[in-house]
Amino acid sequence: MTFGVFRPGASSWPVGVDGLVYGGDYNPEQWPEQVWAEDVELMRRARVNLVSVAIHSWALLEPRPGEFDLGWLDRLLDLLHGAGVAVNLATPTVVPPAWLYRAHPEIRPVTRDGVVLDRGSRATFCPSSPAYREAAARITRTLAARYSGHPALALWHVHNEYGAPLGACYCPESAGAFRRWLRTRYGSPDALNAAWGTTFWGQRYGDWDEVEPPRATATAGNPAQELDFLRFCSDELLACYRAERDVLREHSHLPVTTNFMTTNCRSIDYWRWGAEVDVVANDHYLTAEAERPHVDLAMSADLTRAVADGQPWMLMEHSTSAVNWQPRNLAKRPGEMRRNSLAHVARGADAVMFFQWRASRFGAEKFHSAMLPHAGTGSRIWREVVDLGADLVALREVRGSLVRANVAVVWDWESWWALELPWRPSVDLAYRERVEAFYEQLWDAHLTVDFVPPEGDLSDYRLVVVPSLYLTTAAAAKVLADYVAGGGTLVVSYFSGIVDGNDAVHPGGHPGALRDVLGLTVEEFLPLRRDERVALTGGLVGDVWAEDVRPAGAEPVLRYADGPAAGGPAVTRNRFGAGSAWYVSTRLRGEALAHVLREVCADAGVDPVDLPRDVEVVHRHGVDADYAFVVNHTASAAEVALRGVDLLTGTAWPAGVTVPAGGAAVLRLE
Amino acid sequence: MTFGVFRPGASSWPVGVDGLVYGGDYNPEQWPEQVWAEDVELMRRARVNLVSVAIHSWALLEPRPGEFDLGWLDRLLDLLHGAGVAVNLATPTVVPPAWLYRAHPEIRPVTRDGVVLDRGSRATFCPSSPAYREAAARITRTLAARYSGHPALALWHVHNEYGAPLGACYCPESAGAFRRWLRTRYGSPDALNAAWGTTFWGQRYGDWDEVEPPRATATAGNPAQELDFLRFCSDELLACYRAERDVLREHSHLPVTTNFMTTNCRSIDYWRWGAEVDVVANDHYLTAEAERPHVDLAMSADLTRAVADGQPWMLMEHSTSAVNWQPRNLAKRPGEMRRNSLAHVARGADAVMFFQWRASRFGAEKFHSAMLPHAGTGSRIWREVVDLGADLVALREVRGSLVRANVAVVWDWESWWALELPWRPSVDLAYRERVEAFYEQLWDAHLTVDFVPPEGDLSDYRLVVVPSLYLTTAAAAKVLADYVAGGGTLVVSYFSGIVDGNDAVHPGGHPGALRDVLGLTVEEFLPLRRDERVALTGGLVGDVWAEDVRPAGAEPVLRYADGPAAGGPAVTRNRFGAGSAWYVSTRLRGEALAHVLREVCADAGVDPVDLPRDVEVVHRHGVDADYAFVVNHTASAAEVALRGVDLLTGTAWPAGVTVPAGGAAVLRLE
Amino acid sequence: MTFGVFRPGASSWPVGVDGLVYGGDYNPEQWPEQVWAEDVELMRRARVNLVSVAIHSWALLEPRPGEFDLGWLDRLLDLLHGAGVAVNLATPTVVPPAWLYRAHPEIRPVTRDGVVLDRGSRATFCPSSPAYREAAARITRTLAARYSGHPALALWHVHNEYGAPLGACYCPESAGAFRRWLRTRYGSPDALNAAWGTTFWGQRYGDWDEVEPPRATATAGNPAQELDFLRFCSDELLACYRAERDVLREHSHLPVTTNFMTTNCRSIDYWRWGAEVDVVANDHYLTAEAERPHVDLAMSADLTRAVADGQPWMLMEHSTSAVNWQPRNLAKRPGEMRRNSLAHVARGADAVMFFQWRASRFGAEKFHSAMLPHAGTGSRIWREVVDLGADLVALREVRGSLVRANVAVVWDWESWWALELPWRPSVDLAYRERVEAFYEQLWDAHLTVDFVPPEGDLSDYRLVVVPSLYLTTAAAAKVLADYVAGGGTLVVSYFSGIVDGNDAVHPGGHPGALRDVLGLTVEEFLPLRRDERVALTGGLVGDVWAEDVRPAGAEPVLRYADGPAAGGPAVTRNRFGAGSAWYVSTRLRGEALAHVLREVCADAGVDPVDLPRDVEVVHRHGVDADYAFVVNHTASAAEVALRGVDLLTGTAWPAGVTVPAGGAAVLRLE
Repeated sequence: MTFGVFRPGASSWPVGVDGLVYGGDYNPEQWPEQVWAEDVELMRRARVNLVSVAIHSWALLEPRPGEFDLGWLDRLLDLLHGAGVAVNLATPTVVPPAWLYRAHPEIRPVTRDGVVLDRGSRATFCPSSPAYREAAARITRTLAARYSGHPALALWHVHNEYGAPLGACYCPESAGAFRRWLRTRYGSPDALNAAWGTTFWGQRYGDWDEVEPPRATATAGNPAQELDFLRFCSDELLACYRAERDVLREHSHLPVTTNFMTTNCRSIDYWRWGAEVDVVANDHYLTAEAERPHVDLAMSADLTRAVADGQPWMLMEHSTSAVNWQPRNLAKRPGEMRRNSLAHVARGADAVMFFQWRASRFGAEKFHSAMLPHAGTGSRIWREVVDLGADLVALREVRGSLVRANVAVVWDWESWWALELPWRPSVDLAYRERVEAFYEQLWDAHLTVDFVPPEGDLSDYRLVVVPSLYLTTAAAAKVLADYVAGGGTLVVSYFSGIVDGNDAVHPGGHPGALRDVLGLTVEEFLPLRRDERVALTGGLVGDVWAEDVRPAGAEPVLRYADGPAAGGPAVTRNRFGAGSAWYVSTRLRGEALAHVLREVCADAGVDPVDLPRDVEVVHRHGVDADYAFVVNHTASAAEVALRGVDLLTGTAWPAGVTVPAGGAAVLRLE
Repeated sequence: MTFGVFRPGASSWPVGVDGLVYGGDYNPEQWPEQVWAEDVELMRRARVNLVSVAIHSWALLEPRPGEFDLGWLDRLLDLLHGAGVAVNLATPTVVPPAWLYRAHPEIRPVTRDGVVLDRGSRATFCPSSPAYREAAARITRTLAARYSGHPALALWHVHNEYGAPLGACYCPESAGAFRRWLRTRYGSPDALNAAWGTTFWGQRYGDWDEVEPPRATATAGNPAQELDFLRFCSDELLACYRAERDVLREHSHLPVTTNFMTTNCRSIDYWRWGAEVDVVANDHYLTAEAERPHVDLAMSADLTRAVADGQPWMLMEHSTSAVNWQPRNLAKRPGEMRRNSLAHVARGADAVMFFQWRASRFGAEKFHSAMLPHAGTGSRIWREVVDLGADLVALREVRGSLVRANVAVVWDWESWWALELPWRPSVDLAYRERVEAFYEQLWDAHLTVDFVPPEGDLSDYRLVVVPSLYLTTAAAAKVLADYVAGGGTLVVSYFSGIVDGNDAVHPGGHPGALRDVLGLTVEEFLPLRRDERVALTGGLVGDVWAEDVRPAGAEPVLRYADGPAAGGPAVTRNRFGAGSAWYVSTRLRGEALAHVLREVCADAGVDPVDLPRDVEVVHRHGVDADYAFVVNHTASAAEVALRGVDLLTGTAWPAGVTVPAGGAAVLRLE
Repeated sequence: MTFGVFRPGASSWPVGVDGLVYGGDYNPEQWPEQVWAEDVELMRRARVNLVSVAIHSWALLEPRPGEFDLGWLDRLLDLLHGAGVAVNLATPTVVPPAWLYRAHPEIRPVTRDGVVLDRGSRATFCPSSPAYREAAARITRTLAARYSGHPALALWHVHNEYGAPLGACYCPESAGAFRRWLRTRYGSPDALNAAWGTTFWGQRYGDWDEVEPPRATATAGNPAQELDFLRFCSDELLACYRAERDVLREHSHLPVTTNFMTTNCRSIDYWRWGAEVDVVANDHYLTAEAERPHVDLAMSADLTRAVADGQPWMLMEHSTSAVNWQPRNLAKRPGEMRRNSLAHVARGADAVMFFQWRASRFGAEKFHSAMLPHAGTGSRIWREVVDLGADLVALREVRGSLVRANVAVVWDWESWWALELPWRPSVDLAYRERVEAFYEQLWDAHLTVDFVPPEGDLSDYRLVVVPSLYLTTAAAAKVLADYVAGGGTLVVSYFSGIVDGNDAVHPGGHPGALRDVLGLTVEEFLPLRRDERVALTGGLVGDVWAEDVRPAGAEPVLRYADGPAAGGPAVTRNRFGAGSAWYVSTRLRGEALAHVLREVCADAGVDPVDLPRDVEVVHRHGVDADYAFVVNHTASAAEVALRGVDLLTGTAWPAGVTVPAGGAAVLRLE
């Protein structure tokens, strides 16, 4: 990842939208046209400058195969343009029309168990279906031809949330596509046999035609097959995206994107998608019942920035208040939506958009909040929406500034997939749990972090954190070893470096890929019982996991005081070249993990930041100025020793800023 | 609902049975014919006067397609008639013969996920199957022709427990029937599109052929489609019933019924079924592990009486002791069966029948209790069965008397269905939970209540209780508003009045249909976390739900003391016309709900009744006398200030009656 | 069961293997051939004398239909023979090659719900498929013809773990086979109707073609059909085994076996399989999170010995440390594998084998432990494997000695199946829970027990324990009654003797089959609520279950002090002929059950054994000497008053042996 170079340009940002973007999904087809006029008037009042339209409009735009009814969309775009609201026009391919299902029932996706999913909700189609792809290309071409020159148009929004809720299809057409994908990857059945380890359980393939997706079977399937199928599914959706994007590019020079869900869609390997969009867009929703949803928000924003290769990105969807699809859809409390929005901007978002402009009266999401709620313009939510519009105007100068970090966390969808396949040593092993545990401690230490892919460039970082990188290729292992040898500080959690890209154990003893850099061998995994805890020296307590660690150069920093590894090393540090590599062999959480991380940070020369708990401070660096976003998630006013002018209020703070309870400030720093 | 007019007549009650009905399901085909003689002798001893036969006998009566073997049934009816036991003859259509499945595999029902259910248990057929319906009509016609003149015959029992355990079928034939039903309801695809809100998520239909049942799909489906499918399923079973009934009526003037499960079969809208039977019959089974199963029993009986439009009804099935299909089938303790039976009679049942006469030796229900248990006539259960027969003879004069109430509870299967569709604001919202919570407090206050349908006549009531009437049509809202305007007292719980009959949100802010009568707007729903509690003023505590209530005329009675709505109104009262409308915006239970209801009752002029806890007193009103049923569910004798003669014992109680622990009295009141 | 007669012979033990067998599954196909040389060298070091090969090698041995590639197996057998390692050669029919699925998709098994299971794991085939059986016979014939004369060969290993994980298939071919099986069993549809009680719920069959497996249906199916289907499934797998065995016997005089999982495969009735193998082999894996897994191990070993009719048996698979398929795969701690191995030998195993020789690098079981783990020969596990090899050499003289017991526990797969069918009086009833509860108390009393089948010979036992023998045939009841009449002592737990072999209730009151011998009737079952407890006299506490017990000769030993049966008998004793029969009508555990068993033992004249808790002592009796295995599962050294020479160390213990913490001794007794 490289910093400091902002790459503006017509092709990477909504064209014609000044400053920060503000708006949301707009579904006027749900309302009589007379309501549209009220909508644009209210958008003007709220300072909305971009809306996403037509996301679910395929059946209206193409009511019969090949017959198009675009008049309403013409009128809508003219109306919006007249009001100064730019348009993010979707290819409406996430919900095929009913007639396509009737003509081509084979577009219905099939589950692992063979259940055929029917239309009736959304995103229910087989990505490998030729009939689906052909019809999707046709509607995309029609919209591109008609609207590429429309002055309202600022951005193309391909499809919607690829991979959610459905990431895989096991139908015969998908099976054929999987075989083609494998043939490209491996060349011969023998190479496939070697990669998948088919001598285990007698699974050898003699011919490509014998290969199928990993359907329901009697017991655990072949993990390499499962892993390749997950890769294939992500790639197959990417192929759908590319096909539509390429159609758009034939007609239009406007930027093209699709909305990601970086931390909430496990079925997409976004590292492979980031470079395919002109601007990265992300959807994020709070987990309403989470204790500290703002930490998850920050992680999502940081990961999105990484997928965007450090460039500014768009928050394409979040919510003004409650969503409707969680078990208990808690409403946001006053000020929370503003804090959420500004926290995204702090971490690199130059756009704040919502699902949705106006609350639906009907359908599955009628209880989802909106900029204009059921309660109308007399409501608190509407007032906060209007105020936020003004805030974003006040922040327009931060547009294009960048975030920098000297701590990196390695994130890897492939490790996530592989680690959580069936028949691992313990069901309590969980990829994301470890990432979140480390991330939360870094957040609490007020350290801004970047996420990086496993083979990414680490040269800018003082400290690299590797939580449960179960799948570690030789190339990734070399990157980490070179980083440490060159003077870097590394901290690795248990169950990292175990298998290669085919889920085959690295030979020679665990953790095969990282034995050298860590200076140790793990002789045996020692999973703990449910709710079992182990004591460490220094008063720390771990759970879930322990290991029989045999140092080969590493020095024990902490030892197990009891449990199955009693007396053995629990946390180690290995000098390796000019740097050092730490290893944490049990599950530490909260203060125990913070304790270890403080030592690691000290070792890395990463200085502590002195701020009150739950006061979030992130810096953005522009060409002419630097900015500090201060978001106060607490119920008390916070004093922060930063000096500058608060862009939100115009107030100068020459001797440190006071941020009210639940409030925020954005300082142009002195 | 109108009272005081008893509608006797050959066509609305088992013909030729005097006094109260006593008996049960009788399955003689499970035993050698020599056992039948013992059966009728024991029936005589127990004073049994009606038995239900042939419910599961189709395969015996029609062993091959179109070939009938009725000899054993002839002999059985003659035997019963000779012993003075009348017959409730079933059309045995709940279990088609094996040969019908083999000839017509398409009669097998299909689940939402596409699983084809095979025969092997019971009630496993597609209600829309022409082959099923044709075969059902044939066996019905055969029985009607043969037995309509048999002197033993008193009543026709169509099928068995329609809708339980299977309420829906998703097969292609059901899909065709669903389309026909929709075409009748809506006339055009455009009307369907409008009703179902298909502009949401791009679900527009261009042609009827594109419509399918709401099969498994990627995520939440269209709620209006789901709701209409539930209506269709109830109507389709009703069409099955009507078809058989109409065949019977061609041959017989005897009354026709089918056994409902008013509180235990969620898939039937009994409001639409009540008028289709000549006499309402109901099956009720205790939830064995419930803390107070007798309260649920009372609710079932009251709801059955409502479905019977206030007329006497038949308890067609209950159990002498344990059932076999619950997780833990606790046995009834001594006296409990008698209390259960008399409590049903108290609330309008003029028949007490059991599943089953004699315990089966084999099959899925061999551990279900019976009038004649596995332990035989030496058992406690048999002795209690004989005693109950004598009790019912002693009560014969209550036959035809009616129950009156001045408190009504609105009950609505459509609200139940709609409220519990996916993606509501909180998974803790539950329709029946709220009805039961209010009902239990009214039961504990010793108030006899009627259930009424949402658009029912409220003119006889001082107080109307509306628990979670999520789906409220404009017509229902008008009934409630007129009732209050005319001087009535209304109490409404949260999440009422939200959507119309298509599950579309009423415009203008929640609760759209009831804003005026309640004098308030709910600006935002505030679902609570799992196990979160909110304090109210007055020391009350709520959970599950809170709301941002904005009064528009209503006066706050209680406020939130903490939680997301702290300071706002929690319980309100609105003067509206000559009456008042109360609103409860959080989930109150137990004493907290009782507290609010006491205030509401005082407002309504409903006087408190002074009786010991768990002593149940219900009055029936006859042409010549009034009766008080006193059922003592406690472990101590109870003194009740009612005077009269106990019909069960003949004892006169001129100064108040003493009812022994666990006992009962039925007073002909002075 | 008869004792004292050891039946040696070429046909009942691996040929050419002296002393105790030591080894494991060997999968050389997973490694380059150059690794094989290292393998045999290490086997030699570990004293391995038998390895199981080719279990999953079908696809390698027959890469295309009818084309065989046996060269690698030739080389392997020669190599092993050269190193003195004998071969247990598998028919590799547990995993058919991919080409067979492609040519015959109908070999894929189908679940009760109709889900077609695809290949991809293991053991995924329909046992009734002609295509599968034909292909299985062909590869078996090929291997038999080629290797029956190979000098390395010692034993044939047919298939692998029949019935696990898949015990049933519901496809059309299985349905046809089920009909043939039923036709053989019943002769006519009328006999089937009588046996299955099809008059219940109108399930009569008019023709064989109407009968299907018990597929998914609307509610509980016919229990007799379910029970017969379970019998059929076990028999159908047995037919697969027999077919392969008979092919082998055409070519070879070597013994044939298949590996059972006596306590872990509920779908096989091993009583019907034991006589079909030349030597009984068993696989056993600890439940890692169990509190006392060594007690379950002992139960498995005792049951395996019973299936072997008291003869020595082979432990075909266990693990050196963790497995990979449990939720949390705890590693064995130092010494535990040795204790496990010796405990199996103590209870009759003359072979100690492991899954697996060398840990896999890939596939679903790469985290399963092995004799040679990922950590290699530098590891603790490898050192313990080598030491165990030496131990077994030291124990060679115990080969062929036998175990004797004077307490028997009746075990019955049919009762297990029937008791746990749907719709029993309580979901808390569980067959194996009761067996384990009684077994654990007997283990803690240091009593060695035999398991016996329900109609087995009881003449050698002083005490017979019958836990929850729900299904009790008249013949089994007669065996028990004769045993007691002849002077035996019997203890029976609740829910025994209830139904006959068709799951039909024995007439005349529960427990129909055992009323006479127990001297009582159970008038009514009284299942308890979840977590409800009942007090008994004497301070004991029961849960789950109570009964209304009516003595008819039996004397109450303990009574219910509260609960639904308060005052009634809880534990009874009936003098019957020359013996006595005890009955326990509630669920007792731990010390409460131990208390009752102590009284029962005293009544039976079974003397208490004085040993420290968790010190396991079992005797084997040889022709020339008797041996005592002492396994110390505690963390302290144990003193045991047995005298002799410890074969493991050569140490003589003339005045009692001291066994170190976690250690073991095997004494040749003086």
